[in-house]
Order: sequence, then structure tokens, then C-alpha cells
Amino acid sequence: MLLDRITKENDIKKIPEEEWPDLAEEIREFLIDKISKSGGHLASNLGAVELTMALHLTFELPKDKIIWDVGHQSYTHKLLTGRREGFDNLRKFGGMAGFPKTKESPCDPFNTGHSSTSLSAGLGLVKARDIQGGDNYVISVIGDGSMTGGMAYEALNNAGKLTTNYIMILNDNDMSISENVGGLSKYLNSIRSNVGYQDFKYAIYKGLLSIPGGDGMIKSLRRAKSSVKNLMVPGMFFEDMGVTYLGPVDGHNIKEIIQALNDAKRMKKACLIHVVTQRGMGYLPAVNHPARFHGTDPFDVETGLPLNPKAKPGYTDIFSTVMVKLGDRDDKVVAVTAAMAEGTGLKRFRNAYPDRFFDVGIAEEHAVTFAAGLAAGGLKPVVAIYSSFLQRAYDQILHDVCIQGLPVVFAIDRAGVVGSDGETHQGIFDISFLSSIPGLTIMAPKNKWELSDMLKFALTLNAPVAVRYPRGEAYDGLEEFRAPIELGKSEIIYRESDIALVALGSMVKTAETVRTMLKDKGFNCTLVNARFAKPSDIEGLRELADDHSLIVTMEENVITGGFGEQTRELMAENGISADVLTIAIPDEYVEHGNVELLKKEIGIDADSIFERILERCKAQGT
Amino acid sequence: MLLDRITKENDIKKIPEEEWPDLAEEIREFLIDKISKSGGHLASNLGAVELTMALHLTFELPKDKIIWDVGHQSYTHKLLTGRREGFDNLRKFGGMAGFPKTKESPCDPFNTGHSSTSLSAGLGLVKARDIQGGDNYVISVIGDGSMTGGMAYEALNNAGKLTTNYIMILNDNDMSISENVGGLSKYLNSIRSNVGYQDFKYAIYKGLLSIPGGDGMIKSLRRAKSSVKNLMVPGMFFEDMGVTYLGPVDGHNIKEIIQALNDAKRMKKACLIHVVTQRGMGYLPAVNHPARFHGTDPFDVETGLPLNPKAKPGYTDIFSTVMVKLGDRDDKVVAVTAAMAEGTGLKRFRNAYPDRFFDVGIAEEHAVTFAAGLAAGGLKPVVAIYSSFLQRAYDQILHDVCIQGLPVVFAIDRAGVVGSDGETHQGIFDISFLSSIPGLTIMAPKNKWELSDMLKFALTLNAPVAVRYPRGEAYDGLEEFRAPIELGKSEIIYRESDIALVALGSMVKTAETVRTMLKDKGFNCTLVNARFAKPSDIEGLRELADDHSLIVTMEENVITGGFGEQTRELMAENGISADVLTIAIPDEYVEHGNVELLKKEIGIDADSIFERILERCKAQGT
Repeated sequence: MLLDRITKENDIKKIPEEEWPDLAEEIREFLIDKISKSGGHLASNLGAVELTMALHLTFELPKDKIIWDVGHQSYTHKLLTGRREGFDNLRKFGGMAGFPKTKESPCDPFNTGHSSTSLSAGLGLVKARDIQGGDNYVISVIGDGSMTGGMAYEALNNAGKLTTNYIMILNDNDMSISENVGGLSKYLNSIRSNVGYQDFKYAIYKGLLSIPGGDGMIKSLRRAKSSVKNLMVPGMFFEDMGVTYLGPVDGHNIKEIIQALNDAKRMKKACLIHVVTQRGMGYLPAVNHPARFHGTDPFDVETGLPLNPKAKPGYTDIFSTVMVKLGDRDDKVVAVTAAMAEGTGLKRFRNAYPDRFFDVGIAEEHAVTFAAGLAAGGLKPVVAIYSSFLQRAYDQILHDVCIQGLPVVFAIDRAGVVGSDGETHQGIFDISFLSSIPGLTIMAPKNKWELSDMLKFALTLNAPVAVRYPRGEAYDGLEEFRAPIELGKSEIIYRESDIALVALGSMVKTAETVRTMLKDKGFNCTLVNARFAKPSDIEGLRELADDHSLIVTMEENVITGGFGEQTRELMAENGISADVLTIAIPDEYVEHGNVELLKKEIGIDADSIFERILERCKAQGT
Repeated sequence: MLLDRITKENDIKKIPEEEWPDLAEEIREFLIDKISKSGGHLASNLGAVELTMALHLTFELPKDKIIWDVGHQSYTHKLLTGRREGFDNLRKFGGMAGFPKTKESPCDPFNTGHSSTSLSAGLGLVKARDIQGGDNYVISVIGDGSMTGGMAYEALNNAGKLTTNYIMILNDNDMSISENVGGLSKYLNSIRSNVGYQDFKYAIYKGLLSIPGGDGMIKSLRRAKSSVKNLMVPGMFFEDMGVTYLGPVDGHNIKEIIQALNDAKRMKKACLIHVVTQRGMGYLPAVNHPARFHGTDPFDVETGLPLNPKAKPGYTDIFSTVMVKLGDRDDKVVAVTAAMAEGTGLKRFRNAYPDRFFDVGIAEEHAVTFAAGLAAGGLKPVVAIYSSFLQRAYDQILHDVCIQGLPVVFAIDRAGVVGSDGETHQGIFDISFLSSIPGLTIMAPKNKWELSDMLKFALTLNAPVAVRYPRGEAYDGLEEFRAPIELGKSEIIYRESDIALVALGSMVKTAETVRTMLKDKGFNCTLVNARFAKPSDIEGLRELADDHSLIVTMEENVITGGFGEQTRELMAENGISADVLTIAIPDEYVEHGNVELLKKEIGIDADSIFERILERCKAQGT
């Protein structure tokens, strides 16, 4: 095998040119084999095999710095930099990450995970090189999906000023995680297909019409039609920003890419190579279903079907169903997402009410302020974004939605520990960053029915509301507990005395287990479903404090600024004295791995909680 | 006076065309007169007089919706919508705001304050109109500075798809708050000056060189040179995004603007009118010093000089001086800001070390990740951004800086109550949103010497650090207390017993006063300068708990997720029991007004704190 000859970075340079196609095939087979067992990102990696090979054949690692935007397409890069063994433990706890990590290899110069950061980071590395007199190359590889993010544009706008070398690769497969949207996508399409002439002409005419003397110019243009056509050169958008455009280049032709890279190396400014690739290249199921094979669970290589089909619906499925119903009931309900129509389950809403569905691309900031505008215009927008990506829109939630008290409902999927995507994707900060925003109500459902109830309730509030729920299977226990939701009121599941477990969202299920364990030890336990992270149920807490020796708050969020911390403060402010134990995620980042394992590691599984409660009881002397 | 005939929206339509110039002059005189007394935004408002008049002459308010990006240029709009009397209490507590407020008038359809939100909000209002079958116009007015913000581009990218009317006005004065930066600015310049032909040609050649057959195309282009020149139509950047471009239009010619607005009204898509204006128009001092007259204190109309020259240096001045020294001492120190070179005091660093200074434009997200790249490349970046604008970069601080533990120092100016700019600009959330980020150290200085010491200390930590300090005069008391800074250690100013005042940053000065007041009532008070909001000084707190009956934390930040809340939680976690009183800003937005008045209103002035402590002591029975 050719791959056997590649044990570290730059080894690929020993492979003769005529064997490159074979190597590409070996890499694809390797990736398909490994990911079919471990799960992971497939389609994007299959699309980037030749591009990655070309980069490694052209540049000198780790001296030269390659930054992979988002980073899920870096598997071939990992393979070519001595991390082949890592694929046996890909995305497993303690194993190799699915994203670039500086900790893993000096060939990973910058961690990525969220979209559209690679150009900003790349510009930083360029300036650091120049100031310190270095002579390395800096290359950022960014997908067309990531180019819809505002940060990328902010960086492009700054890249235009460069007078030293910086290479951006636009890896264009006409697809973000779901399908791509917007003017830029259309523009890239026109470059790809070379059929943009009509639009171009139309645009010129429109522009000229508004200029003094434009009529005369139109006449002369009509005479020069063929030149106009010649002028439909690609890349003017980037050239307008001051960035040299090279391309389009066939992203599966290694020699062609290398040629472009060598051209780019000679430039004393920022340049962008437009590389056209196909997602899933070389594996038909991934070509046909790139969204499904974006991030995939283990699958059967023959058929492309999942090995372990889901048994129970997830919270995403529940949200998906409820949204269709809510849309049917009230035509003021509209839905907004940022390139997560599949992931958030809004696909069904889109199909049912295409005119009331908005996928704005990877553009969380715009998504939120756009929703604020929809709400200001009298509609009832539901914005569905994953917890960790909503971090991008903190200011917009505060400044555009909440200061004005606009009725925007945030459906926060992937809230809590997400597992194998790791530290950049853990949804463990939302309670903290959202709680500091005055006027925002924050809820979390205990089970699948409650998610439905909370969404309905949220739409009646006429105020900003967030509903957070975790990735994966929806809890279907406690069906019989479905008291109507009241603002700021918790729900008592079991009322006893001694110890009160006040659990938020996903932790209610865990609390049930803990309660059983404590019962076995002879403790009577009240179980409260907190429902609201904000506003807190002060009166409920006051009652609990009366006849419980210990109140345990439980949440799947970091401790700092979280539900427990706030509860403790509010109790003190309101003169409620009680011994309170806060169960939350410690103030640190949570790596990748199996969710159950991770929860154990960070102490929010039933066993760990049980132990901590016993300890506290011992300390109390009870 | 013509202005007397305008008492509500649409009254301007009664003014005959020949009197428009006189009205414009009256408006300018009015604004100069009022702002010279009250302070406020001047240069941008003087630049937008004719543009605002043209909008009001063309559209029907409040049915049609005008959204002012940032909103500081909306004074003429306020004047023309019946808010003339408001200027007597402009930006005063309880008086008229300096930004658009839905609460103030139905003619303000959307609150603004931070940059680059108006296109997203406008698109929301457009879609809300279309879905509900409305027939109003939606107009967003955005400056060229705001166009450097990524959100604006995210919105433009979505605007390209519209098939109904939406009007964007690019109010181009070639200046954000400080000077404008980047490729887009250069591009707009080339439109304005019509001298872009050389660049354009160069770009085409570059592009063609990389295409198969490009050589032939170059030859035919050479033949068609005059057509090429004709093709240098402005606005292709926007047309490429799918947005119709109209302009450039003279922004001080009302009839010309109205003509363009009427053209735009007929379009069934998004269009952008490029209006060229001059900041400060009609008042020479503001034309010559637009940055100084961006937001100004009261000034003498004759000379343009401030009425009350500053007596003492502000924290910004201290930061400015220290940065020059630090830059001299270590050539790895670099500075980054987002269009706030003047406001943050980095102007002097820029002058001293132009190659190590980066103003990235209004682009906080890029600023932070760019700094992460600089740090990853071995430099020591200091990022200076106002507290409320740093909200934009929450994700970048967490995801790009802190997960990787990169040594970026955040200098957070305007942290705390900022006064007359009001709720969108109060820097009262940073401790909360930053504290939830693992691995970030957060400091606040008690006085001007400590700001200097903290910045020096921050640069030695080789880890992410934030230093927050308020707007305005730097405290110059407590000079004799200057113990070396140690990570996570507070500084004891006065050690007594009974009550411990643990004050953070600006609150140390307040705590001194409170301590004197309590002394008069017979209480012994320890005064601790907390120094660190994170990590907390647990051992220091443990010692205080031993011999104090009450610990009072004091901070200029909202209570939720703030320093006090965290202190209480950490004490409990560490088994330190004590009665703790949290003094912080209540969980609500803080409006505009005089800082001292606002502090009283929200209960963080010395009198209010003194009262709350007495109350608590009474409750304790001490």
C-alpha cells in the first residue's frame, strides 16, 4: 500500500506523480472504511482528498501553516501528517479529534470548529510572520458555505490591503451543511456554469440607466457585445475587495491545483484560489446524499445505510413535528435557521410552509436580527440554532431582540454535552450567556411532551424566550406529569422531604435515577422539574427550603453563571436560607467522546451526583 | 421659521421645494445650537440633513419604515417627526434618547445602537410585510463604516434573493467613527473618484491569465479597450450579490436623492442607493475634525472647542500612554481595534508603531480571531474594544482565543455605566458573559496606577486575559496602595473586622466612601480591592469569613452571572460560610442619562449601598 509509505508530514512528496491517483483511491478507501465504523464527517473529506494532497505536495509542513475552516474536512490532512493510527479511535474519548487540534500535531497551527474563522486566523498568522520576519506560507481553506458567514467577509475586507503573500482556497462544492443560500452562492454558480452572461448584462444596463450619460454608454456597449461577453471573467467580486482571484480550478485534478498553488505562491498579496470539488467524491451514497453523509453515524459500506437505525425519536424530531403543527395553527408563525434545516428538523416546516421558512446560510448574527425584524413586523419567528453556534449571536439576542422585548422564540438544539464533535461543539454555555440578558425567559423540557408544551407556551408569551434541549433521543418517561406550564413555575414530580432535587431539562431523567439510589439509602427525596432557568421559581424554592435539609440543583451547563449559581444568589437575595448543592459542569472545556462517558468524566452522571449528595449529607451530619 | 411649521411626521411635505435649502439650513443651525449645549452626535447628523429630508419628502411615515443603522444620525429624523422639544433634554435621564427608540415614536420602527444591524432588521420587516400582504416601504440607511461589519454582508447575501421591494441607502462619507479601512472602502473610493480603471484592468488580466484560453481573451480585450473603460460601471460588487445598485448620488442634493428614491420604489427587488455625503456639512470645525465631532461634549459654536476641558486624564488616556511604553519595551506587543483607534486611545500606539497596529474596521468578530492568529503566530496582541461592542465577539473569545489558551489581552474600555448613549451602550454585561468562559482571567483596576500594573501583568501571563475599566476620569486616589499583582489574589486596603467590603474595579472608590459612612455609624470595615473577577481569591475570602459578620461584594455589572454571584457560589463550593450581600446592577437594562444619576437609580451609588448594608445589619441583629 502506498499509504504505508506515509508515516509523517512531507512523506507524500516521495510518492511519484504517476501514483497519485492510486494514493487518492487508497485514501478514499481508508476514510470510507474507518468512518463507516467510527462515524464522523465523510462527504466533505471525500471531496477534499486531491486538494489536501496537492497542498501537502506543494508546501512544507509544519513550517507552512494550513488552516482548515470548520475543520471537519481535515481527515486526509491528519492521515498525511502521521495520524493514521488515530483513526482507530477517531472522535472517541481520549482518541483523535474530528477537528484540527494544535495539541495533536504541530501541523495543526490553529484549532477550528465553528465556521468562517480561518481567514481571520490566517491573516493573524500572516501578520505575525511578517512582523517577525518569517518566510513561511499561510494557507486558509474555506468552503463556500463558510463564505456566507460575516466574519469571512470582515477578513476578506482586511485581506485586500496585504502586500505580502497569503493564500485562501475557496473549496466550492455549492453546499454548506444543508444547501447553500444567497447572492454569493448564486454568483459562484454563475462562475462555475459560465452562464451568467444574461444577468451580468442586465446588471450593467440597470447600473448605467442611473448614471448621467448612461444612455450613450449603453449604446456603445451594445456595439461591443462580444467584448462584454469576454469580460464576464470570474472573480470580480473578490478583485473588488482587493484580493487576487485564481480559478476556477478542478478540485480533483492534483496537477491543476498544484499549478494554481505555485502561481499563488509568487504573489505579494492576498489571493484566492477557487477550487471546485464534489462532496462525497468516490462514494456514490455520499455523492447522492451529501447532507446525510456530512456527519454520519456508522454505516454499511455496501448500501450506505446506518448500521444502528434510531429506535426512538430525538428532541429534534419532536421539534420538527411540533413546528409543522404550530405553523398550521397560526400563519404568523415563521421559522428561521442558519444552514441547519436538516439538523434542527425544520426541513418539514420548510416543505409545508416554504414562504414562511428562512434558511439564511451560515449567518447566525443575521439570523437573529432578521428574526427581530420579523417580530417587529408582527410575526412570530422561531429561530432554531444549535447551542454552540448561537454563541455567535449573543450581541444580537441582547441588543436586537431583548432590549426591545421582541417575541422571538429561540429553539436551542444540541444544548448540553454533544459528544464526539468535542469542545468546540459542546452546548454547555447557553444558560450562562443567556441568563445575563434581562427580559429573556429560558426553559428546558424534561421529556418529549414537555418540549411540545414549552414551544406552544413560548409562542403565547409575546416576549423573547429560549427553549433548550439536548442532542439525541428524547426522554419518553414521566408521561403522566404534564401540568400546564406557567411562567416561572417549576413542576413538582414527587413531593417528599429531606432532600430536594431541583433538576433542569435533561437532568430530570438523571434525577429520577439519583432519587431511586438515595431512596435505597433511606433518604426521602422530592423531585422538582425546574422548567425555567429564568425566571426562577422563588416561591417554590422557599417552600422547599422549609422542609428540606438540602436542595440540589442539577443542570447540563457550566457552573459559572449557570442555573445553580443563579438559584443560590436569588435564594440569598430573597432571604431563603438552605443548604444548596450545585451540580453542573465544572468550569472547563469538555473534549470529544461518548456522551455517557463524558458525563461521568465531568461528574454529572447519576453515580457521581449520588456520591456528591451522600458526601454533603455526611458533612451535614445527617 | 420653517421649522415651526413642522410639528409632526409628513409636515415637511407642506414646505415648497424652493424653501428646502432654507429648511436644511435651519435644521443645521438647530442641531449645532442644541448639540453645542447638550453634547451628542454632530458630524454624522449634519451630513445626513438632506438625505433625511429627501426620505421624509418621499415616504409616508409611520407606515413606511426607516431603519437608521447605529442610529446616531437620526436627529433630523427625530426633528421631523415631532420631537423638536426633545432636544432640550437630549440624552438626559428621562429625556429623549440619542438613538431611535420604538418607545419614543411610531416613526422609529426598530431600535439601533450597535453597528451593521439595519439590513438584517430591514429584511425582517420586508418579509413580515410580504407575508401579511402589506404595501409599505422598508428603507435601511447604513453608513460605509457599518458596511465593514460582517452582519451587513450576511444580510446583503440574503437580500439578493428578494423579489419584492427593499431599499438600502449606503450613506457613504468615507469614514466610520475613525477612518475607514479595507477593500470595500477602497472599492467605494474608486467609484467615487472614477479612477479605478487601472486596477480594474489589472485585475482582469490577472484573472484571465489563470483561465484556459485566457491569453486570447486578453488580446481581444486589448482591442476593446474603450469598451472596457465604459464597463467600469460602479456597483458591480453589489450587483454580484444580486442587489441592484443606483448611484452614486450627491447626498446634499435633495432633488437628486428623491429622484433615486423614486427609481428605487419601482423595483421589485432589493436595491442599494449609493449616496455620497460629507460629515459635518455646514459646520467647518466638524468638517475638519469629524472624529472629534462624532460624539461631542458641549462646545463653543464659534471656535468648536470644548466648553469644559477635561481636568483629569481618563482611563483611556492611561491605557494610551501605557500601550506606547509596552510597545517600546517589547516588539512582540501588537494592538488591534475595531474602528476605535481614537476612542480607545490606541491612536498614539498607531503613530508610534504603525506596523504593529491594526484597525480592522467595525468588525469585532474578525478583530478577535485575527488577534488569536497573531497570538498563535507568537505575538502578544492587545485588543481594545468597548465593553458593549465586545458582546459581538463572545463566540470568538471563547472558541478562537480561550479554548486554545492563546495569550490575547482584551482591554475593555467603557466597562460599566456609560451614561448618555444609553441602554445599547452600557458596558454592564462583560463580567457575566466573560466569566462563563473557562480559562479566561478577568481583572479590573481600582485606580489609574493599577490599570498600568494590570496591563503589564496581563502580558506576562501567556494566557487569555481581560482588563475592564470604565469610561471617564481615572481615579487617582489610593496611590499608596500598589502591592504587586498576583494571579487570583485580592489586595487588602484596610483590614479591620465586622464588615468586609470586597469591591471590584471602579467600585473600590465607592467602597471607600461607604466605609467612611459606616465608620460614622460605628462599624469597623475591611476594604478589599478584589482585582480579579476571575479567578476568585478563595483563600482571601476564607480569611475574611473568619472574622467578619458580613461580606459585601460590589461591582459595576449586572447581578446575573456577575462577580458577586460567582463569589457566593465559590464560597459555598469551598465550604466557606458567611453572610454575603451582593451589590450589583439589577437584572434590567439601564437607560441614558448622567452616570451619577443612573448609579443612584440602579442602586450602586454610595448612599444606596450604605442603606442596603445597614438594612442587612439590622436583619442580622448586629
